[in-house]
Amino acid sequence: MPFEAINLAAKLQQFSDHWSPKVVAELNDYQLKLVKLEGDFVWHAHEHTDELFLVLHGQLRIVFRDGEVRLSAGEMYVVPRGVEHMPVADEECHVLLVEPRGVVNTGEAGGPMTAQGDVWI
Amino acid sequence: MPFEAINLAAKLQQFSDHWSPKVVAELNDYQLKLVKLEGDFVWHAHEHTDELFLVLHGQLRIVFRDGEVRLSAGEMYVVPRGVEHMPVADEECHVLLVEPRGVVNTGEAGGPMTAQGDVWI
Repeated sequence: MPFEAINLAAKLQQFSDHWSPKVVAELNDYQLKLVKLEGDFVWHAHEHTDELFLVLHGQLRIVFRDGEVRLSAGEMYVVPRGVEHMPVADEECHVLLVEPRGVVNTGEAGGPMTAQGDVWI
Repeated sequence: MPFEAINLAAKLQQFSDHWSPKVVAELNDYQLKLVKLEGDFVWHAHEHTDELFLVLHGQLRIVFRDGEVRLSAGEMYVVPRGVEHMPVADEECHVLLVEPRGVVNTGEAGGPMTAQGDVWI
């Protein structure tokens, strides 16, 4: 068994692309993913799961059809399953995601911003 | 639907007791819990689930029968299911836990350090 801490800052230095989550750990059938966000994402929903966003650096807006939540570093939010949302980062921000293994970043929406899943760093 | 960020620092100001996890969010059937640790916990294991520790403040050692891992703020570790471990904090540290709803802090060990579950702040 490896006794090695997962250092989030060190992991974040290993990539620079946006909207492309990288898996850093698994917890049962859940994955912990780091992602760098900048600009507007696509409207989408995850029909079968909630999704947790924890902001590590910068600021994130999660826009809903009827409101929005603004997150700064050290703040988190759980988007309930089935709820349409669009993450927006006016400047680059870094986020830790928690969600079940196999979740696709664009949910049911698909399109060119769909990232490959299960990419580990 | 409430559009309110969960601010971890603000939540941590709401309690001061040690070894008594407080739930701050749910993600499907998982819970996100904040806990303040100081001193030695008890040896225990969780037979049916992994357990994630993310250190937010201070330093944490997780001692195993055959080694240990040292975590500073911004570092995390997943203790695999069934593995005996003992968290130790030489000075107070603050941790975010992720684990399924219903997990007991002392696992199979029980004893006086067993905390009440499902306490929300």
